[in-house]
Amino acid sequence: MSLNAVLDRIDEDLDSAVARLLDLLRIPSVSTDPAFAGDCDTAADWLVAQLQDLGFDAQKRPTPGHPMVVAHGDQDGPRILFYGHYDVQPVDPIDLWDRDPFDPQLEDTAKGKVIRGRGASDDKGQLMTFVEACRAWKAVNGTLPARITFFFEGEEESGSPSLVPFMQENADELRADIALICDTGLFADRTPAIVTMLRGLLGEQITITGPSKDLHSGMYGGAAMNPIRVLSGILADLHDDTGRVTVPGFYDGVPDLPEAVADQWDGLNFDHGTFLGDVGLSDPAGEQGRTALEMLWSRPTAEVNGIWGGYTGDGFKTVLPSKASAKISFRLVGTQDPHAIRDNFRAFVQERLPTDCSVEFHGHGASPASQMSIDAPAFEQARKALSDEWGVEAAYVGCGGSIPIAGYFKDILDMDAMLIGFGRDDDAIHSPNEKYDLECFHKGIRSWARILEALS
Amino acid sequence: MSLNAVLDRIDEDLDSAVARLLDLLRIPSVSTDPAFAGDCDTAADWLVAQLQDLGFDAQKRPTPGHPMVVAHGDQDGPRILFYGHYDVQPVDPIDLWDRDPFDPQLEDTAKGKVIRGRGASDDKGQLMTFVEACRAWKAVNGTLPARITFFFEGEEESGSPSLVPFMQENADELRADIALICDTGLFADRTPAIVTMLRGLLGEQITITGPSKDLHSGMYGGAAMNPIRVLSGILADLHDDTGRVTVPGFYDGVPDLPEAVADQWDGLNFDHGTFLGDVGLSDPAGEQGRTALEMLWSRPTAEVNGIWGGYTGDGFKTVLPSKASAKISFRLVGTQDPHAIRDNFRAFVQERLPTDCSVEFHGHGASPASQMSIDAPAFEQARKALSDEWGVEAAYVGCGGSIPIAGYFKDILDMDAMLIGFGRDDDAIHSPNEKYDLECFHKGIRSWARILEALS
Repeated sequence: MSLNAVLDRIDEDLDSAVARLLDLLRIPSVSTDPAFAGDCDTAADWLVAQLQDLGFDAQKRPTPGHPMVVAHGDQDGPRILFYGHYDVQPVDPIDLWDRDPFDPQLEDTAKGKVIRGRGASDDKGQLMTFVEACRAWKAVNGTLPARITFFFEGEEESGSPSLVPFMQENADELRADIALICDTGLFADRTPAIVTMLRGLLGEQITITGPSKDLHSGMYGGAAMNPIRVLSGILADLHDDTGRVTVPGFYDGVPDLPEAVADQWDGLNFDHGTFLGDVGLSDPAGEQGRTALEMLWSRPTAEVNGIWGGYTGDGFKTVLPSKASAKISFRLVGTQDPHAIRDNFRAFVQERLPTDCSVEFHGHGASPASQMSIDAPAFEQARKALSDEWGVEAAYVGCGGSIPIAGYFKDILDMDAMLIGFGRDDDAIHSPNEKYDLECFHKGIRSWARILEALS
Repeated sequence: MSLNAVLDRIDEDLDSAVARLLDLLRIPSVSTDPAFAGDCDTAADWLVAQLQDLGFDAQKRPTPGHPMVVAHGDQDGPRILFYGHYDVQPVDPIDLWDRDPFDPQLEDTAKGKVIRGRGASDDKGQLMTFVEACRAWKAVNGTLPARITFFFEGEEESGSPSLVPFMQENADELRADIALICDTGLFADRTPAIVTMLRGLLGEQITITGPSKDLHSGMYGGAAMNPIRVLSGILADLHDDTGRVTVPGFYDGVPDLPEAVADQWDGLNFDHGTFLGDVGLSDPAGEQGRTALEMLWSRPTAEVNGIWGGYTGDGFKTVLPSKASAKISFRLVGTQDPHAIRDNFRAFVQERLPTDCSVEFHGHGASPASQMSIDAPAFEQARKALSDEWGVEAAYVGCGGSIPIAGYFKDILDMDAMLIGFGRDDDAIHSPNEKYDLECFHKGIRSWARILEALS
């Protein structure tokens, strides 16, 4: 069993690995839009075929939504569960893409080669880093150094409605010594990281109804209640002047940042000017008196992800609309209770509703934050392997995004999870022109080869 | 010249008149959407053919936008200019229509027969009442009792950008002793009305930009400025707790309602409970301490007609959007200056903009309010003719909507205008399932026949 031979094999096989990833990226597996259900199925089939080709007992497993892919290896050794998701975000606004998001390609850019297309970074490119590491290991050694199970879902971008029931029903089959999750990023451009702190996520869609039908704003304007005005008032009330969320009880369970963690984060020398400058901003917009890293990793948020009502087409229509809607999401930390916050938010909205208006709520996901324990030896083993590959000390960091699977592994399967990924901040995930740097894909595969050795 | 014979002829010809209106309603002449430009042209051609058939010298006259239709009669007598518009509102939300909006039909309803389709009431059905009155008059008498000019535009629903230049360039041709405008409603269900007070209209579209691209709300949420939050705050600030508009200087030029007018309006016994109850509301939502009629006719307003930003499709997308937009319109009264209000509104928005955000403004229309003088004898002549037809004393009223043409007739052509129309509050103009009551169409034609006699 020679690590160097495996790493060499990875280097030699890179072009083929990219070609395989482009194949997967061509499948428009947008999970949130029912129109793409067949494509999600196709992506699952594609992964099953890849894993069967590597000698895994791989199957597409039905759920009430999009299928899971589960694949078991037959080697001895420590049990490792690897998780990724094959579904991708919608592509709108499509007119801001420079190419068809599902006609991916390898592009030369000023910063080096990138793999461009929807899902390149989130999460198809990332999940393929582990598949390719296993492929190289097996090609060189004829076998794998651990008893590996792949577990891919197709609903991560739409709230993972089937995930918990599936894990509960198949707990014995999925339980392992440790879980590896590849859906996060590097810290800064070249510093590998293991995420130990993840924010939770709570989604709420609200629709406020005023008049029973759209009205002419000349005939009724002034006398009839406008639901856009009501909605704007509610959304404007969500934050106070210091950037704090005003929903009652919202900060229950939000811990103070331990001084040791604060010191470690200060040591990362995070450059919020560059981080925000890259997206055209300059001032951290969150709670006053917090550092940018706190705002991103350890503080909860309320964001409006979408708003619509009335006439939104070309030209003008002097309508006084019947309805106005918004999608709002809360990022949660510590022990904030998503269900209590949902109740409190709904009461907050109801209290601000004029007599003449009604409101409908549609909940979407409700996952608490997770905090990993780094006492398990696997954490330090993996951190050393990552440091070796990148030539920089790997960091334990927080993550502003919500990857509820990490909490589920702990709660349902009683196993620790290591979140290790190779995305960069400028990958434009969830945005037009998503990309994954070829360097990240390449060194990501090499990183996993090293981690597999370290854990076995 | 026998009025009774003309009225009989109108009664006998009603089915054919409805059939002709249905023909016009089948043409989807939506002016605000460039996709329907050809249909606007077709509607103009249709009207030219109808008027030529009545012996008028009718022509489609080009403008930079949709064409005007101008048709001159050759009879002697007082000069009358009749104005209407052949363009219609967009039909969205299309799924709330019970039938194809451009496949109109005569329907039986619990309240009697209605002509259903986009434009049935606003304004194709209304403009055809005058065309049909002329047709009957000519069929019976071989000639018309006045020197009539028809003047139809096709951009009323999109801000009438070509109207003022066209009136200025053709002022001598269009000038008459009086203008008749048919684009308003009955007061209450069976009381005819002449509108003498019209609100002006100012439109502004604003787009606020925060980050330079759409962001992942997990990766950036908390630290990056969300333009929907900024927009909501600005819109929420537009009104104070008493319902007054907070833009500085907004109430400059808003007159107190003269006591005599207030008394006349009180005498109308307007039932705001029923007016609002018909659209599912109960409380007048405008300025505290004002009657519902004041809110609708003599007080200015600010309404948000549309808002959009971020992800608005099915499911959830945790995007922190780059842009958020709204369409806002102001109804103006008295001598409020639309240009000053535009400037003040833009400054109001700029003042509320965080450093990291920028804003783009797109103005859309800017017409002041108009106030008719009812001293010209034509007003009392027409009011008596209307009272005779409907068996109820006709009223001088205000109108919450904006029909800037009335002001243009005064300013550009120095002529008075009488606004007489036969719409009802439940016509659902600008909304799904627009209709025009057959009774209104029928008695509208008869009303014009009587008014033509009274004026000649």
